[in-house]
Amino acid sequence: MAKVLTSRSESYSQWYNDLVLKADLAENSAVRGCMVIKPYGYAIWEKMQAVLDRMFKDTGHVNAYFPLFIPKSFLSKEADHVEGFAKECAVVTHYRLMNSPDGKGVVVDPQAKLEEELIVRPTSETIIWNTYKGWIQSYRDLPILCNQWANVVRWEMRTRLFLRTAEFLWQEGHTAHATQAEAMTEAMTMLKVYAKFAEEYLAVPVVQGVKTANERFAGAVETYTIEALMQDGKALQSGTSHFLGQNFAKAFDVTFTNQEGKIDHVWATSWGVSTRLMGALIMAHSDDNGLVLPPKLAPIQVVIVPIYKSMEELDKISVVAKELVAKLKAKGYDVKFDDNDKKKPGWKFAEYELKGVPVRLAIGPRDLENGTVEVARRDTLTKEVMQLDGIDERIVSLLDDIQTNIYQKALDFRAASTTKVDSYEEFQKVLDEKGGFVLAHWDGTSETEQRIKDETKATIRCIPLDNEQEAGVCMVTGQPSTQRVVFARAY
Amino acid sequence: MAKVLTSRSESYSQWYNDLVLKADLAENSAVRGCMVIKPYGYAIWEKMQAVLDRMFKDTGHVNAYFPLFIPKSFLSKEADHVEGFAKECAVVTHYRLMNSPDGKGVVVDPQAKLEEELIVRPTSETIIWNTYKGWIQSYRDLPILCNQWANVVRWEMRTRLFLRTAEFLWQEGHTAHATQAEAMTEAMTMLKVYAKFAEEYLAVPVVQGVKTANERFAGAVETYTIEALMQDGKALQSGTSHFLGQNFAKAFDVTFTNQEGKIDHVWATSWGVSTRLMGALIMAHSDDNGLVLPPKLAPIQVVIVPIYKSMEELDKISVVAKELVAKLKAKGYDVKFDDNDKKKPGWKFAEYELKGVPVRLAIGPRDLENGTVEVARRDTLTKEVMQLDGIDERIVSLLDDIQTNIYQKALDFRAASTTKVDSYEEFQKVLDEKGGFVLAHWDGTSETEQRIKDETKATIRCIPLDNEQEAGVCMVTGQPSTQRVVFARAY
Repeated sequence: MAKVLTSRSESYSQWYNDLVLKADLAENSAVRGCMVIKPYGYAIWEKMQAVLDRMFKDTGHVNAYFPLFIPKSFLSKEADHVEGFAKECAVVTHYRLMNSPDGKGVVVDPQAKLEEELIVRPTSETIIWNTYKGWIQSYRDLPILCNQWANVVRWEMRTRLFLRTAEFLWQEGHTAHATQAEAMTEAMTMLKVYAKFAEEYLAVPVVQGVKTANERFAGAVETYTIEALMQDGKALQSGTSHFLGQNFAKAFDVTFTNQEGKIDHVWATSWGVSTRLMGALIMAHSDDNGLVLPPKLAPIQVVIVPIYKSMEELDKISVVAKELVAKLKAKGYDVKFDDNDKKKPGWKFAEYELKGVPVRLAIGPRDLENGTVEVARRDTLTKEVMQLDGIDERIVSLLDDIQTNIYQKALDFRAASTTKVDSYEEFQKVLDEKGGFVLAHWDGTSETEQRIKDETKATIRCIPLDNEQEAGVCMVTGQPSTQRVVFARAY
Repeated sequence: MAKVLTSRSESYSQWYNDLVLKADLAENSAVRGCMVIKPYGYAIWEKMQAVLDRMFKDTGHVNAYFPLFIPKSFLSKEADHVEGFAKECAVVTHYRLMNSPDGKGVVVDPQAKLEEELIVRPTSETIIWNTYKGWIQSYRDLPILCNQWANVVRWEMRTRLFLRTAEFLWQEGHTAHATQAEAMTEAMTMLKVYAKFAEEYLAVPVVQGVKTANERFAGAVETYTIEALMQDGKALQSGTSHFLGQNFAKAFDVTFTNQEGKIDHVWATSWGVSTRLMGALIMAHSDDNGLVLPPKLAPIQVVIVPIYKSMEELDKISVVAKELVAKLKAKGYDVKFDDNDKKKPGWKFAEYELKGVPVRLAIGPRDLENGTVEVARRDTLTKEVMQLDGIDERIVSLLDDIQTNIYQKALDFRAASTTKVDSYEEFQKVLDEKGGFVLAHWDGTSETEQRIKDETKATIRCIPLDNEQEAGVCMVTGQPSTQRVVFARAY
């Protein structure tokens, strides 16, 4: 078979781009920086959405929908927020086109200028807090626990499919609370939800931690994050949960009467994950043959390929295959029987390998005679002949095994790619030769962090929660430090 | 209880606005014409989405996602299409803000002007057909059966919550086919899906028909529609399915090699329903006390209200109530036990009536003694005492009854509100005095249709499919006609 993908060793970045395109996940569109998410890619996203949505509802949240547009003046109300987003805003200035005077196409109608320009939401804190103002009078109206599934736009200059696009899909939770403690609890609850999702569904181990001031969300008091490690040794921020304090309540004047009858500003959180998770999923597990998908998020979990010479043979195999499909579907699995006669088995094998289908079954005439089936695992690329009798039960446990194995492999990789260093020289050497997470002492200042970033392109991914306390000195300035933080080059 | 809503007889339009706000379905936002869909309203929309999404997948469709933005030049490629949408386009012209020179807030950075303006999609035919061009070479690549759930923007000058908003949520299916016949079949299949959804889930009877040229989608060869009748006698177009012929394939030069080896343009359909369906749902069934929701789409299908004087009584009732909640949840129903001690039963009764919860159960101390429960139906506002034993089974059949009854009521209303007329004078009289669907002969010309619209504000909602053929003469021009068409004033 001709190689479909650039190998990871040759160029990890080209491998990623090849894979996204060849596995039919997404492609660039005619609009700079905006992607088309193709059906196979979208099917994975839908599975992610379904799981996350269930987790949000199980933790007491409800969905709602807020406007795509934000009045320009709203952005300025929170000083850090506007600073963070003003430079990448798509701005709507007009609301009508007219025929071009030269008769060729259409032009913007200069008469149809908006009184105030509208920003296409880069995130919705401002429009939502302006709305919450009308919903909250007393502590009885709290908490408000809303999430929305939406598209957002950040006019990035350098884009990559899923990892950084001008438009992306995400969910953003926005909650309002009567007390600081309750808001903090909420921010942590959602961080844990994201960590659980990453580890149990994406099969990607994550470090949970808090961001430094330099890396904090624009407008947050604290940003909590889950940080994953990709196979090329670069980190990927995979979800964030922000404790916003009273910043947005103050900016939008959202007050309430508390239980003691006093007026106070409302406490807030926001939290989100996006189609960027698709990038994490792809980069954490896949190999030079294509995608490796964790069974829990694979659009097709099991594919059955018939091996036959005559239509008579195909008919016989079909009877057995369809029975198995029905059994597995009844157990809630997504199964496909690919009896397309126009494609050869070899082509199908390569295709489903490229698409990351976790389990591939092949059934031929000899299998029918022997009551067997050939079972191939995508994660290990191993094959085994099994008894057809009771195969549905074995597939269920095999899918569990694969989910666990993929996670364990990523966990082992992360362990092998995490290095403690005690000098700046060693730090730079590890970054250049090995990459990964580098644990080092830092003096806690933004200046030192910025200097490290300028000199090495590495940033502090987070200060892990429940971090081990350890006396040391900053590798750069020699100032005292009480804990190591996680550095990495990142997407 | 103080009346919460304006009555329908007083002002149907005010009643609708009151209801949307008071039942917590939606509200206007700070952005002109853009609504906030509140959690209770969004929960209904989510139920609609889940059912429709299943129906789309069962008919072979997959979901995908295409960009929010459309290059301005794309719109002009299909002549009718640009004509239909240019006058209501939100236009992005810049991609950055900067600090205002006066230091107050932010202004658009004049340096950050887009080379080509981008339109916020009013519908996605153009960007999608530009994408499909890259996906289609041969008949083997066809059909393409994609749907997307998305937000769209049409800069309407007069907006009403759900019925006409500048931004709305919808799904838009876009399919590509090798033959005209296959595309026609697809357009009809999706019309049937919409009709089934309207009748079996929304409980709204619809007339299926084809639009006249005047009312056709901009760029379509034929537009098929489902038309519903609201309680005020006005029609509401509730879903459309378009046979697009080869118009968009020609505009975007999408050709393929057919089975005979010849190059041909691809055939297309598109079809959509939107949050407008929320308007149909509300207006078709609700009454002066509030929403009446069909059980299949109600976020809460059954509510249990405890009637108690002491916490001891509440505890006893809770045991019985929670057991019932568990039983109904196990059957897949959405049930709420409202043991909020801060609200009186009377307040709760009124609240759930306003919110349209189909079945309300009340359990008090005497019920516990007698082994009974009071069952109230929202649709008929009737109450009945039933045996607690086996109540879960009775509720299941009661919910079915309610679904059927709501539909039948709407069907009866439509029958009573449909009038055949044979003269233009009678036509105008019926429209003014009774409204509803008016069946009349028409000469088939756009001119006559336009004249009728100008003079009476009534439009031809559709020419029903499988329409009875009947010789007659146009009520306006006296020209011969072979069938009656459906006129109505419409939302």
